[in-house]
Amino acid sequence: MTEKNIGNVMYGWAKDLFPINRSLMGAGVRETFNYFKNIIPELEIKSVSTGYKAFDWTVPEEWEIEEAYIENKDGERIIDFKTNNLHVVGYSEPVDEWLNLDELENHLYSLPEQPDAIPYVTSYYKKRWGFCLSENQRRKLEPGDYHVVVKSSFKEGVLNYGEIILPGKSSKEVFLSSYVCHPSMANNELSGPVVTIALTNWIRTLQDRNYTYRIVLIPETLGSIIYLSKHLEELKEKVFAGFNITCIGDDRCYSYLPSREGNTLSDQIALHVLQHTAPNFKKYTWLDRGSDERQYCAPGVDLPMATIMRSKYGEYPEYHTSDDNLDLISPEGLEGGLNALKKAIEVIEHNAVLKSTVYCEPQLGKRGLYPTVSVKGSANEARRMMNLISYCDGEHSLLQIANKINAPIWDLYAIVDKLVENKVIKVL
Amino acid sequence: MTEKNIGNVMYGWAKDLFPINRSLMGAGVRETFNYFKNIIPELEIKSVSTGYKAFDWTVPEEWEIEEAYIENKDGERIIDFKTNNLHVVGYSEPVDEWLNLDELENHLYSLPEQPDAIPYVTSYYKKRWGFCLSENQRRKLEPGDYHVVVKSSFKEGVLNYGEIILPGKSSKEVFLSSYVCHPSMANNELSGPVVTIALTNWIRTLQDRNYTYRIVLIPETLGSIIYLSKHLEELKEKVFAGFNITCIGDDRCYSYLPSREGNTLSDQIALHVLQHTAPNFKKYTWLDRGSDERQYCAPGVDLPMATIMRSKYGEYPEYHTSDDNLDLISPEGLEGGLNALKKAIEVIEHNAVLKSTVYCEPQLGKRGLYPTVSVKGSANEARRMMNLISYCDGEHSLLQIANKINAPIWDLYAIVDKLVENKVIKVL
Amino acid sequence: MTEKNIGNVMYGWAKDLFPINRSLMGAGVRETFNYFKNIIPELEIKSVSTGYKAFDWTVPEEWEIEEAYIENKDGERIIDFKTNNLHVVGYSEPVDEWLNLDELENHLYSLPEQPDAIPYVTSYYKKRWGFCLSENQRRKLEPGDYHVVVKSSFKEGVLNYGEIILPGKSSKEVFLSSYVCHPSMANNELSGPVVTIALTNWIRTLQDRNYTYRIVLIPETLGSIIYLSKHLEELKEKVFAGFNITCIGDDRCYSYLPSREGNTLSDQIALHVLQHTAPNFKKYTWLDRGSDERQYCAPGVDLPMATIMRSKYGEYPEYHTSDDNLDLISPEGLEGGLNALKKAIEVIEHNAVLKSTVYCEPQLGKRGLYPTVSVKGSANEARRMMNLISYCDGEHSLLQIANKINAPIWDLYAIVDKLVENKVIKVL
Repeated sequence: MTEKNIGNVMYGWAKDLFPINRSLMGAGVRETFNYFKNIIPELEIKSVSTGYKAFDWTVPEEWEIEEAYIENKDGERIIDFKTNNLHVVGYSEPVDEWLNLDELENHLYSLPEQPDAIPYVTSYYKKRWGFCLSENQRRKLEPGDYHVVVKSSFKEGVLNYGEIILPGKSSKEVFLSSYVCHPSMANNELSGPVVTIALTNWIRTLQDRNYTYRIVLIPETLGSIIYLSKHLEELKEKVFAGFNITCIGDDRCYSYLPSREGNTLSDQIALHVLQHTAPNFKKYTWLDRGSDERQYCAPGVDLPMATIMRSKYGEYPEYHTSDDNLDLISPEGLEGGLNALKKAIEVIEHNAVLKSTVYCEPQLGKRGLYPTVSVKGSANEARRMMNLISYCDGEHSLLQIANKINAPIWDLYAIVDKLVENKVIKVL
Repeated sequence: MTEKNIGNVMYGWAKDLFPINRSLMGAGVRETFNYFKNIIPELEIKSVSTGYKAFDWTVPEEWEIEEAYIENKDGERIIDFKTNNLHVVGYSEPVDEWLNLDELENHLYSLPEQPDAIPYVTSYYKKRWGFCLSENQRRKLEPGDYHVVVKSSFKEGVLNYGEIILPGKSSKEVFLSSYVCHPSMANNELSGPVVTIALTNWIRTLQDRNYTYRIVLIPETLGSIIYLSKHLEELKEKVFAGFNITCIGDDRCYSYLPSREGNTLSDQIALHVLQHTAPNFKKYTWLDRGSDERQYCAPGVDLPMATIMRSKYGEYPEYHTSDDNLDLISPEGLEGGLNALKKAIEVIEHNAVLKSTVYCEPQLGKRGLYPTVSVKGSANEARRMMNLISYCDGEHSLLQIANKINAPIWDLYAIVDKLVENKVIKVL
Repeated sequence: MTEKNIGNVMYGWAKDLFPINRSLMGAGVRETFNYFKNIIPELEIKSVSTGYKAFDWTVPEEWEIEEAYIENKDGERIIDFKTNNLHVVGYSEPVDEWLNLDELENHLYSLPEQPDAIPYVTSYYKKRWGFCLSENQRRKLEPGDYHVVVKSSFKEGVLNYGEIILPGKSSKEVFLSSYVCHPSMANNELSGPVVTIALTNWIRTLQDRNYTYRIVLIPETLGSIIYLSKHLEELKEKVFAGFNITCIGDDRCYSYLPSREGNTLSDQIALHVLQHTAPNFKKYTWLDRGSDERQYCAPGVDLPMATIMRSKYGEYPEYHTSDDNLDLISPEGLEGGLNALKKAIEVIEHNAVLKSTVYCEPQLGKRGLYPTVSVKGSANEARRMMNLISYCDGEHSLLQIANKINAPIWDLYAIVDKLVENKVIKVL
């Protein structure tokens, strides 16, 4: 893997992982984690058992599914889990019955307004069975009897999640979270873990990381609740910035969803990165939330987590249907999302509070940093440097300064290095 | 009286009270208070005597008026207090003289731009006499001599005011104030006390009131100053919300006038109620003030008093003229004003600070509060409930939460009850 | 000098001073200071020597220039310092050489886009020589040899600056600073010191000044850095408001440049004065800075200095060229700038915190301050007075009150005097 074609690499991972039948728990999830462990050896695959209590929630049984189909009177399998794992409602209980069409209808899910798409449906906490199919498939069903078969079973098992800790100079932590629990869908969800893994790989290469990185891959909702129930105090103490990584693989737009109050460092960073790289990005509010920020930013939890996305869950028509497939995401889409997150991590690593070492403006000319002849306009080039210095008061962070002087923060990194080297400013 | 036709009931009270010649002090005020005492037995009619000093002010003598008229040479009473009590300047001193028209002009008040209206004029603190008449009446006056008679007298007496205390579970108080001191005018002033009395009657019916209600009917300005001079420390200690009730009987618009800094709970409530029930309401500023908020929100007093009105004093053409009569107000206008204040009181009673009982989102599904099957869009109905819970952090009040989630607070009362009952949140 | 024709007087000073060859240090500066000392005897002319270290800076040698010219082969002086002192680069080292045109070009400065203007160029801290000429002059230079002569010298000397302290009742200080270091240019710079001197003269006439005034005339940048290096602690302790005075002589517009955070009393005053006298004024930001506020508002210095200008340095085409001459400024332009600063000083002197002496509204009628008859609209005249009183809560300054009630503060001075005299309010 080279950084150069990282978009294609990520797309390749997504392609490999797409067919696996992931769910809240079970074999599909483990297969996915094993795939990632081959890329990131530091990935630890952990588990909690059925019955484990996390705050208000309890880990259910594992669901195993062997096959599921609907047969017509002629013995033709007109709907088959094997052709698309979205065809069966997640956590469907076993069934083997003949039903007439009217009875069957109660167990069918389709989308009248998206007649070609198979919807994604689950029922984790209440036992039922059901089939999902396209509206067009449904319309073709003729009155008569159908043989419905779901060969599934429930058993005591484990809920798996992955954790990676990449230590840095400080024990203060940056927290990255993505989820693994959806079957064959691409933007939501495969783009999330795939970009997270690429980002983790890149973080591993950062020399002299200032901060420790904690990266988790968990099943959405229940997984983040479990992780919080095990690590809440530690996370509250250590985490000063973080991102939930989801829906980051198509190339239609960039999106931002805030933390609960929208005022954390992570929010400021997400906004800065998107304003300077994708100024037409879509800005959502806390009321538009729908992923694990619901847990990470819940009252009393309040981790500083913001979300940078491409097309946001719930906002694009293919969401939670069979149309959210490998055609929807692209190497460019994945790479754009990865780059935004890399820029965000770079901001975190560079965002020091700076202080001028002298009163008044330093004489930059004698250090070769300022034109020695004063002609109309001659100082324009040094202007950004002077603007930066003018806010090095020991109170503003570099990100705040960048916002004050209307500059992308990454344009300031080299200037800061030069000024620190020349002892004109220092890092507090 | 039933709640159903409360608009008509209030209008009936206004009709009964309209003819009475109220003033700063005196018999008309007492007659008005006695009328209200028949409706609200808890109303206590209190008094302070002539000469009583309240801060910078002193209670003047009572003014009694027997008759007042202008007669022409033919002995015809061309202006007569009996036909409209606005015809004489309030607190006019006695006079019995023949004057020529030029001399008379100095004592006449009319409104050239509203030629049909008799203006309302008073001179409480400086002795003078005068007649108010329509511009059309004035134009008909021919040169010649006129006999002017005011049979009035001043005497040591009392300034009356009414007070009602309706105790609640807490000794913390909601303060409601309206005024009784204007003669025959309807929107300003009869709508104020009439709606206040209806509101008081409704508050009496509230089971398990959380708060104590202090309701006063006082003459404007001097009355509120006297009441404050007697109760300032008590009011500052107990009152956490309140409304000045005035100009609340026509049905042209709704209006809001803030407290001095505009940031009290009462301001927030008034804005919330009007934004969600009459979004085109008119928003005035402190510089537009003109009623008893001038005293209640004065420096060092600073009670949290805001004002919800229909057409605001000084802003409608009929204000302080004979055109502010029973045609200007209506049962619907009065009822709309009453309802806005009732909604405001309900907000006060419901505005608790809420706290989630669990970390992370509660599992509402197991409590029957959330769909057990996850289909695209299935959570929409529970969305408002989830939004509410997401702000139950022990710091936001229900009103703040309603504003955060763009919901009318009254739509949340039942949800809060259900969540408290299910022990998902608790009231702090 | 009378106040009446102060515009002409200032213009006369500028005319007298225009020809002098000022620079960072030297005879021209001293001549200018001596001229001002004749007007303001309190002006003390101070000095620091070559080699003096001020924070990051060191005072260079004095530069003396006898003559400078370019001669062509025919012995004609085609460029001569005597005709315009902008023709030689400030601090040019001596030279006496024959050069061909190509070699000469490296030492020439002109402005292609302003072909008639001679630019103003300096090189204080690096030894070089050069000539400035109009683009039109430059285009006429034919290939061939030229005799370039700069008879200049450098010597240990002094950097001069002027200081005036005008004591007031309080030792708290208002700090005014302007600069003296530019050769023959009018808006930038002569308007600055000329208006400062007229302003100082006017401050001297203020009876019972509340505050002490510290006024300095220094060479820009190095002068303010030196002054700060000598007085930093004193200035930080005493100065509560101040203005940098520059570019205040033309009559095209008014301009405002803020302090670093833009929130000091001086900023509020500058904004108030300009909003009420020149509402179309141009509002710049800290990023547009370019004069001594760069030092006065530097991190750790943070004096409360704002800038009121006419056409701002760097923003008008004639800036730093020979076109910034006596035609650009005018008596009206200078007087307008002076008046804005006088109004600003008056605000400082009047800006007390006020407190009502009574609870509730005072009864102004008994003091003859309010109409005794209450007719519709009769209180309008007293409205501003009542508005003012309503904010006399011991927390708002008069400037804050003026902003709250949308009044020019100078319209309130007489009202405050009347209310204080009537003991209705008091000054805290």
